[in-house]
Amino acid sequence: MSKKLKFGIIGCGNQGSAYASFIEDGLVPSMELVAICDIDSKQTDKLSQKYPAKEVFSDYKALIDSGLVEAIVTTVPHYLHPEIAMYAISKGVHVLNEKPAGVYTKQVKELNAFAAKHPDVTYAIMFNQRNNPLYQRIKQIVDNGEIGAIRRTNWIITTWYRPDAYYGQSEWRATWGAEGGGVLVNQAPHQLDLIQWIAGVPKAVYAKAAYGYKRDIAVEDEVTAVLDYGNGATGVFITATHDILGTDRLEIFGDKGKIIVEDSKKVTVKRLYKSEQEINAGIKASGTRFEFPDGKQPNEIAEEEVFTTDSVWGAQHSGVLENFARHILHGEPLLAPGADGIHGVRLANAIHLSSWLGKEVSLEDFDDDLYLSMLNEKIEEEGKYAPKP
Amino acid sequence: MSKKLKFGIIGCGNQGSAYASFIEDGLVPSMELVAICDIDSKQTDKLSQKYPAKEVFSDYKALIDSGLVEAIVTTVPHYLHPEIAMYAISKGVHVLNEKPAGVYTKQVKELNAFAAKHPDVTYAIMFNQRNNPLYQRIKQIVDNGEIGAIRRTNWIITTWYRPDAYYGQSEWRATWGAEGGGVLVNQAPHQLDLIQWIAGVPKAVYAKAAYGYKRDIAVEDEVTAVLDYGNGATGVFITATHDILGTDRLEIFGDKGKIIVEDSKKVTVKRLYKSEQEINAGIKASGTRFEFPDGKQPNEIAEEEVFTTDSVWGAQHSGVLENFARHILHGEPLLAPGADGIHGVRLANAIHLSSWLGKEVSLEDFDDDLYLSMLNEKIEEEGKYAPKP
Repeated sequence: MSKKLKFGIIGCGNQGSAYASFIEDGLVPSMELVAICDIDSKQTDKLSQKYPAKEVFSDYKALIDSGLVEAIVTTVPHYLHPEIAMYAISKGVHVLNEKPAGVYTKQVKELNAFAAKHPDVTYAIMFNQRNNPLYQRIKQIVDNGEIGAIRRTNWIITTWYRPDAYYGQSEWRATWGAEGGGVLVNQAPHQLDLIQWIAGVPKAVYAKAAYGYKRDIAVEDEVTAVLDYGNGATGVFITATHDILGTDRLEIFGDKGKIIVEDSKKVTVKRLYKSEQEINAGIKASGTRFEFPDGKQPNEIAEEEVFTTDSVWGAQHSGVLENFARHILHGEPLLAPGADGIHGVRLANAIHLSSWLGKEVSLEDFDDDLYLSMLNEKIEEEGKYAPKP
Repeated sequence: MSKKLKFGIIGCGNQGSAYASFIEDGLVPSMELVAICDIDSKQTDKLSQKYPAKEVFSDYKALIDSGLVEAIVTTVPHYLHPEIAMYAISKGVHVLNEKPAGVYTKQVKELNAFAAKHPDVTYAIMFNQRNNPLYQRIKQIVDNGEIGAIRRTNWIITTWYRPDAYYGQSEWRATWGAEGGGVLVNQAPHQLDLIQWIAGVPKAVYAKAAYGYKRDIAVEDEVTAVLDYGNGATGVFITATHDILGTDRLEIFGDKGKIIVEDSKKVTVKRLYKSEQEINAGIKASGTRFEFPDGKQPNEIAEEEVFTTDSVWGAQHSGVLENFARHILHGEPLLAPGADGIHGVRLANAIHLSSWLGKEVSLEDFDDDLYLSMLNEKIEEEGKYAPKP
C-alpha cells in the first residue's frame, strides 16, 4: 500500500463532516483521517460515533501541535480561515483552506505573504468547482484561444435560493460580524473564483448590491456587478438568494467565438471559421445586407458544439482533497493554489465597497484599509460581534 | 368604401420607400399615399417611377402647406424629427414621428411640450415593435400582474451586428454630428422603448459604453447599462454591433414568476403558485434542505408555459401606420403616443452621460443642458457638423 497523507479536520460542521465521510468512504485514496477538532463537543461526538478511531481535539492549536497530522483543512467560520491557516503553516503543517480564503483582503494578503515565506509548506484552497469537468473544459477552450481574446463575460447566477428560514437557523448567519457578507461570501465564492480563473482578473468593478432587499438580513441578498478588464473587455456578474426560479447562465464572448453555459450543465461552443476582425474586414455591405468573405453564407461562419456533463456529488471535493494529498506526496500540480483565494475575496470586497461608495472601484489599487474600516462600521452598527483588526 | 387618411411621406430613403410600398400594397387600408418629399430628387424620382400618381416635393414645408395631406411621417435623419414634427403640428397636420423621437432630450421635450399644446393634432411615434404580438403578450402578462412586481430585468441584445463596411456606406453614419450616437441611437431604440414600455421607466442608470471599440467609428458600438428602478428593482441592458454571434435574451423576474424571451421569438413564462414572499414565509429549513409550504415539491411551485410567435416583415410597421390612421379617423387608441418617445431618448442620453462622467446618472432629474453641451463637445471634436442649438 502506498503512503497516505495524515490529515486533520478543523471544524466538524456540515462541511467538515462531509469531508470526513469522503475520506472514510475511500473517495480520497491518498489521505488518511487521523484527527478531528471542534470547539463544540457535540459536533466531535457526532463524528466520533461514526468514525471512532480518530483523535479528538477542542483546540485547533493542540491538534496542529500534536504531531499526529501532516495537513489540515479549515472548515470553520470564514473569519477564522487566515488565523488557523497561518498557525498551521508556522508549524510546518500543510493547509487546505476552506473557501473563501478569508473575509477581507487585508487578512488574506497577510496570509498569502506568510505562506509565500514558507514555500516548503503546501497552501491550497477548496475551490472544488475547479474540479468540475465542465468548467475545466471551458477553461481549456479559453486558454487554447479557441474563442480568441475575450470581449465580454456575463454570468447570471441566481440559483442560490435561500429562504428566511435558512438564515434563521443560526445567529451568526448573514451577519457582518460573523460572516462578513451575504451571497458574495457564503454562496457565490465559487463563481467569483471560476469567472476569474477562466476569464482573468478584472481591473475594476462597479456594483449595485441590495442589503436585506428580500430577506430579513443585514447583508447583501442581491448583486449586480459590472467588471472592467482594462483592455476594453467587460463583464456582468449577477447573483441573488431570493430568486426561487433561479437562473444560471454564463456567456463568454471572444474574438473567435462564444461559449454559453446553461445550468452549469449544458455547454454550447460556437467557433468562428476565422476571427471576427478578419470577417469584419472582408464583409461587403449594401444597406443592412452583408456579403461575407470567402463565399460564406451566414450559417457557415461558425461551427457549433454542444456538450453536457454531470458532476457527481462529492467527486469535486474529494478530487480537490486527493489532488492536495498527491501534490504533497508526489508533487502533482496543485489545482487551486491557496494564493488564488485573494481574487474572490478582493472581488467580493470591491463589490461591497463600490455599492457603498456608489462608484467604480479599482481592483489593482484596492484600498484594503478603507474596506476594513467600512466593514467595521457595519459590524459596529450591527452590534453583535467585535470589530476586526 | 370607407374614408382614408391622406398621407405624405417626408424622406424617401429605405424607410420612407418601405412605408410607401406597405400603403400601395394595401397593407394599410385606412391610408392613402398622396404626396412624397425628399431634398434629394434621385430618391423621389425612384419612388415616382414606382408610384407615379403622387405629388412630389423637395421642401417638407411645401408639402405640409400644400393642403394635400392630413398627416405625415418623418423618415428623415434623427436630428430633424422634432423640427419637422413641430412644423406639421403647427399647421394642424397629424404626425407619425420616426424613431428615435429626436437625438437629445432638450429638443424632444420641446417637441412634447409643443404637441401637448395642440391636443387636437395627433402626434404618434413609429415604435413598430410595440406591434409585435410577442412583446404585446409579454406586456399584457406583466400588466396583468401575472409575474408580480418586477424585481429585475436583464436584456442582452447584441444581434445588431454591423461591420465596418456598413458604417462606410455613408459619411453621416455613426457620427456625433449627424446621428448623435451609435447603437443606442440607430439600432437599439426599439429595445430601449420596449424595456421601458413593459417594465417601467428607471430612475437612474450607470453605464459603460465603448466608443469605437471594435469598429472604426467615433460613437458607441457597445453598451453595458445598469438600471435602477428606484424601488429596489434593478436591470441590466447590454447591446453591441460587433457580436457576429449575437445574443438576444430578455429575462424579467418578478415576485410571482419569470419571463424569459429568447431570440425575440421563444417565450418561457414561469408562474409561481403563490408569491415568492408567501412561499418564503412558509418554508421550513434544515441546513440547505427546504420544505415548501402547502406540501409542495420543488417541481410543483411553478407552472411553465412556452410559446413562440413569428412576426411577418412589414406587418409591424404597417400595423402602426394603420393604427395611426384609425386613431385619427375613428378614435382607436394609439399604440405609441408620440410623447412616449422621450423615454428612449432620455435613457440613451443618460447612458452616454453616465459613461462620460463615470458615475450613475438620474433620469428623473436628467440634466438636459449638460448632456447637450457634452454632445456638442463631441460634435466639435469630430469637426464635420455644426453644434446643435
